[in-house]
Amino acid sequence: MTQFIGVEDMRRLVRSTGTKAFLTQLADYVRHDFSRWTEFEKSARVASHSREGVIELMPTSDGQLYSFKYVNGHPNNPKTGKLTVTAFGVLADVASGYPLVISEMTLLTALRTAATSAFAAGLLARKDSRVMALVGAGAQSEFQALAFQALLGIEEIRVHDPDVLAVDKFMANAAGFGMTLVRCTDVAEAVAGADIVTVCTAVKGRQAVIEAGMLRPGTHINAIGGDCPGKTELHRDILDLGKYFTEFTPQTRVEGEIQQAAADYPVAELWEVLAGVKDGRTGDADVTVFDSVGFAIEDFSALRLVYDLTAGKRRMVDLVPELDDPKNLYGELVGAAHPKLVEPA
Amino acid sequence: MTQFIGVEDMRRLVRSTGTKAFLTQLADYVRHDFSRWTEFEKSARVASHSREGVIELMPTSDGQLYSFKYVNGHPNNPKTGKLTVTAFGVLADVASGYPLVISEMTLLTALRTAATSAFAAGLLARKDSRVMALVGAGAQSEFQALAFQALLGIEEIRVHDPDVLAVDKFMANAAGFGMTLVRCTDVAEAVAGADIVTVCTAVKGRQAVIEAGMLRPGTHINAIGGDCPGKTELHRDILDLGKYFTEFTPQTRVEGEIQQAAADYPVAELWEVLAGVKDGRTGDADVTVFDSVGFAIEDFSALRLVYDLTAGKRRMVDLVPELDDPKNLYGELVGAAHPKLVEPA
Repeated sequence: MTQFIGVEDMRRLVRSTGTKAFLTQLADYVRHDFSRWTEFEKSARVASHSREGVIELMPTSDGQLYSFKYVNGHPNNPKTGKLTVTAFGVLADVASGYPLVISEMTLLTALRTAATSAFAAGLLARKDSRVMALVGAGAQSEFQALAFQALLGIEEIRVHDPDVLAVDKFMANAAGFGMTLVRCTDVAEAVAGADIVTVCTAVKGRQAVIEAGMLRPGTHINAIGGDCPGKTELHRDILDLGKYFTEFTPQTRVEGEIQQAAADYPVAELWEVLAGVKDGRTGDADVTVFDSVGFAIEDFSALRLVYDLTAGKRRMVDLVPELDDPKNLYGELVGAAHPKLVEPA
Repeated sequence: MTQFIGVEDMRRLVRSTGTKAFLTQLADYVRHDFSRWTEFEKSARVASHSREGVIELMPTSDGQLYSFKYVNGHPNNPKTGKLTVTAFGVLADVASGYPLVISEMTLLTALRTAATSAFAAGLLARKDSRVMALVGAGAQSEFQALAFQALLGIEEIRVHDPDVLAVDKFMANAAGFGMTLVRCTDVAEAVAGADIVTVCTAVKGRQAVIEAGMLRPGTHINAIGGDCPGKTELHRDILDLGKYFTEFTPQTRVEGEIQQAAADYPVAELWEVLAGVKDGRTGDADVTVFDSVGFAIEDFSALRLVYDLTAGKRRMVDLVPELDDPKNLYGELVGAAHPKLVEPA
């Protein structure tokens, strides 16, 4: 039997743990797995592109556990009441190849993206950062605000989205966060005075939502939304201004902001900064950019946390047969000779 | 909500449809999809190898539907009561990226492998084939026997496996198939007089289960078990004797029997034979070899059949959130502002 964690199970887990506590634990798991980076099997995700969007598979393994995530990105989905990004994933036992848990990951991806952003900002942003611009008030926005409050001590959010209803939604959800919320009429106003700039828009195409001229020295940019070929959010002038940091560079060169840069544009991976192998921020005037596209190890960390938190209270589904004789698949499941009944969960 | 087809659901579907009828329909679906081969996005599967085995992801898409399968291969699993191969898969809607159905595929993979074998043999074997050697009496054996009876008119099975209990199991399961069953003491005896030789062993390593000297002219070899790097079943001398046919050659050159051959060893893909682009069998004396490793399009066909057969009687799980406002993931699932309750299935 395989553990199943549906949307309602995940919702209850996060609510009972507390969103900020969950984000904090998740950032710890991400940090732990990034600190043992070389133990992981890493590959760029396998993407299937269509006119409407992309479907991706993101596998990784540390030799003991294997995980993969299925995730789609379809910017026009909200027009028909669907989510832009949905996801689910599996954690499996490498020794047997058996899946341990299949889990919803739409909510979990939102959480791990925010936790990873905050983990990266903890490495790269100025320690006295208190004000964050939030450009894009979509499904990811509240998670970013909470993660940066919990892990970075951010006190003020300056939010802008051309979709006024999205900002209304953010303001209503964040009203109880205990943060100062400032609704801004354009991107420049949101970015003005911000220590950290989080950009999470879903529009496809080469955008230049953030321009170099908007940024003051010392800013950390958390660039979430530029995450597939042809989709960027930062003006390419920022390439000359900032130091770029990646998760797994071979994937980011194809999908991230640095797809606009030369193939040898210098970057450092987060794990290298964490391990002290490469420099992160070297002074208060550096502009640092986390060119986030999302990497399989973050999903691995997230599934591992969920698996640990749900020990002993797991709903099971019959995804894999249990046979008395593993060579007798036919006889035990199909044939009449051994009419064993397996009860569904 | 996403359709969920567990082991028990699949078992009931196959039993109510009838195994031979299911195999016949499945071979039709495989033939249909192989006949529109160029419409599919094709890639070698993504494999994660460990000391104990392999975990693979096998995605494909025809532009309307997307599918992937998770499958493991762990030859030592039966020692601890587990199956060598387990699998599950997903069929998804390309336009929205939403999963339509998540299905057990351990049983379904056994069925699709047998259906594909019979489809290939229908293209390649002599039409007067009546006797099949079955080398390996493991989990795949009964499905092969039934598929070749249903689709090729095979009347006699000559079975050998060094595991006597596996042969006992096969003989018991196949007793009601209405075929002549001959228990053979070694491989040579099983192969003697056979029109078709099906090889499905699970042992890792370079084996030479079948040697060129055992084969008479006109034999069709259905080579199932050589399906990952370092795992082959046919003596390399057969490369000089037979014409080899593949599913998707870039994958087969890495995983199939032809990993023993030069990189330019000539092969034809099944779809090319089906389309008349390349020759299949050109005379009654040809030795033909289906170098089967399993390809994603066969799983696509199998999931498509199951989806069609289960229309209107689907068990649902909450793998993907349903939101009133797709941008309000936080508010509807985590926040207190909209305490909407989603009931689990």
